[in-house]
This record gives sequence, C-alpha cells and structure tokens, in this order.
Amino acid sequence: MIFTLSDIEQLARIPRLTLINAISGFKSANLVGTSSASKVPNLAIFSSAVHLGSDPPLIGIVTRPVDGELKTTRHTYQNIRESGFFTLNHIHTGIIEAAHQTSAAYPDEVSEFEQVGLTPFWSKRLPNAPYVAEARIRLGLEYVEEYCIAANNTILIVGKVLELYLPDTCVDARGNVDLNLAETVAISGLDTYHQGLQLKRMEYARV
Amino acid sequence: MIFTLSDIEQLARIPRLTLINAISGFKSANLVGTSSASKVPNLAIFSSAVHLGSDPPLIGIVTRPVDGELKTTRHTYQNIRESGFFTLNHIHTGIIEAAHQTSAAYPDEVSEFEQVGLTPFWSKRLPNAPYVAEARIRLGLEYVEEYCIAANNTILIVGKVLELYLPDTCVDARGNVDLNLAETVAISGLDTYHQGLQLKRMEYARV
Repeated sequence: MIFTLSDIEQLARIPRLTLINAISGFKSANLVGTSSASKVPNLAIFSSAVHLGSDPPLIGIVTRPVDGELKTTRHTYQNIRESGFFTLNHIHTGIIEAAHQTSAAYPDEVSEFEQVGLTPFWSKRLPNAPYVAEARIRLGLEYVEEYCIAANNTILIVGKVLELYLPDTCVDARGNVDLNLAETVAISGLDTYHQGLQLKRMEYARV
Repeated sequence: MIFTLSDIEQLARIPRLTLINAISGFKSANLVGTSSASKVPNLAIFSSAVHLGSDPPLIGIVTRPVDGELKTTRHTYQNIRESGFFTLNHIHTGIIEAAHQTSAAYPDEVSEFEQVGLTPFWSKRLPNAPYVAEARIRLGLEYVEEYCIAANNTILIVGKVLELYLPDTCVDARGNVDLNLAETVAISGLDTYHQGLQLKRMEYARV
C-alpha cells in the first residue's frame, strides 16, 4: 500500500496520528521525571528519547508545543526549564500500565506518581528531579540547551547524563547493556508495548 | 551499579560509546538512502530516527559531525543537502547483516547497495533518493531544515514524509501498523538487533 503526502493529509486526525507515529520504527519507552518550583513531582511518558552523543553523554527528548493540548507534556517542559534537571526511567514489563496512565491529563497540582502508583526516588546528586524507584535503568540529566523545530513548533531538549543507575547483572565491563534482562520495553505507534527478543549482535563492520 | 558523569568520562572510548549508546533504550533501525549529484546511490544505517509530528508528517534523524570520522554518515548528510531528499527503510530480520555492513567506511565513489547486496529502487515521486527494494516499510522524505546541536556538533535533519510504502497486511484502516508482522527490528547499543514481541496495546489514558 502506498500513501502519498496528499493521502496522509486527507486522513482523519486519529488515523493520521496513529499511522505517522508508527512509521519511524520502534521507539524508546521512558518515564520523564521532573519537579516544579513548588516541588510537586511530575511524571510523563516519552517515546522520543534519542542518543545524541557519548562524549559528553547527551540525550535528546522531543516535547510537544508548549501551548499544546497535552498538559502533562507542558508540565515536563516547564519543570525542566525551572529546575534545570530531569530523569529518564526505562519502562519495563512490570510497569507498563502505570507508565501509560501518566499520559492522562492530570491537573498541575497533582503528582502523577501518586495517581499511577509509582514511587519518587530522590538522589543527592540530582536534588531537583525525581527518579522512578520501580524503574531498573534510570538516568539523571542536566538541561543543556533546546531547539525549537520551526516546522511544527516541537522542542528538542538536550540533556547531559549526570548519573546512571543500572542493575549489576545488566551491564558488563565493556559497557554492554542487556536491555532484555532489564525487561526494558519498546513502543510502536501511540500505545503498543513490546518486549525485545535479541536476534544477533554484529561485529564492527569493515570494508 | 551507579555511574556518575565522572565515572562515564573516565571510561575508555569504546566502553563509553557502548554504554551511552544503550541507555536511551531501544532504537529504531533504518537504512537511509541518498544519492550524490553524480547519482551514486548511498546507503547508511541510522538508529536515530525520531518522530517529530504527524501534521505535517515529520521525522528527524541525527547525523554525526560532518568532519567526523565516519565517512558513510558524512556522505548521507552531503547527499541530503545536495539532492534535498532521502529515504528511510526499515531494517527487517532478513536484511540485518546487509544493513549492518553499510556502516563500513566505503569510499565516496562506491555504492553501499552493491557492496552489501541490496537493490536500489527509484520512485517517480522521489527521483533523487533511492529506496531499498528489499525493505518492507519505506518512507520517502523531503529535507525541510536542520539544527546543529551546539553541545557536540551533531546535526538534527528534519524531513517531511512525501511517500510511504507499507505491506497491505501490516496496516489497517485506523492507521495501526504492525511492525512485528513486517519483521521490523530494533537496535540496542551499537550493534545488537532485536525482534519485537508485542505485550499489550493500551487504551487512551484518562484521568
């Protein structure tokens, strides 16, 4: 089946959202933890975390327009700008329901942690953003910079990794991380969660 | 196990690359097809494709610094700027080895398609960038804009979807795409390929 741009533009909003959210392939599944100036912890699901570089260790996340309809995403952006910090917490098979429920439009003064039954965990090194205690792989990041994507007003937030928690069994001395042992999931489209099944690890490619 | 930023900085280059490339979670696995002004087709593997928005349909890819060591990535960037177009082709279980081999440092005048045994496919609607005939899910994109990430000189290229190929069996009228039926794979770290195993599809979350 072929969709041209014109076909895509003529789709109703929900099928278009559903289709276009799926076509980049599998996506990372993270809970982003932030805190407001008044210290209300906030938790939001993001499938847009992208590796930007390893020296320094940089990760980007894409947020919707700040005046957009999804309150939870707007809170995340505001909190990151106010506090200067955020956490990324891998969603694993045991917390899919709770993680997905953070996408409901809870009001400002409500903590998604409480609403969905997850536990904030504060690290001494990252006092201004809560981790998810139930997550197994957790990253603490400092806000570095942001880029507003002119084409649709989304924002790419660039964060530097200050702290990284990994189960001892999931990482080796060469830096290999076993996401499947950690039961980290992937997202496709808007709402579908997948476990990974390792097929193969490849050698460094040479001509 | 906890890694602080200082621990990460003290790792040797390869373990640091390996570790940091894994910690954002599962990554999309795409072959990016481009063409030089002299019409040499180029193919490079990217794990950085990220959904930016659905109206208009926008996808970003992150490329290394243009003066970086990985020739294949540099060619991709140069070709996209020269031609204004590029394709994204989902890597599936049957083409992992060929796809991975595109990351070898082939010289300018060589087509990775020929070297790795994949077939360029040219569409009338996208005359300046080749698709991978063997891929099942293929996207044709027009270059829209780019952002140089100041923190490490990587470049976010923003593309608009002009054309989309999906197997009839892998998409329904509501826009749902079955990536597992298409055997699309995900990448973890630098070199590990995974199949997806669908766990669950969630309802739209409400308070």
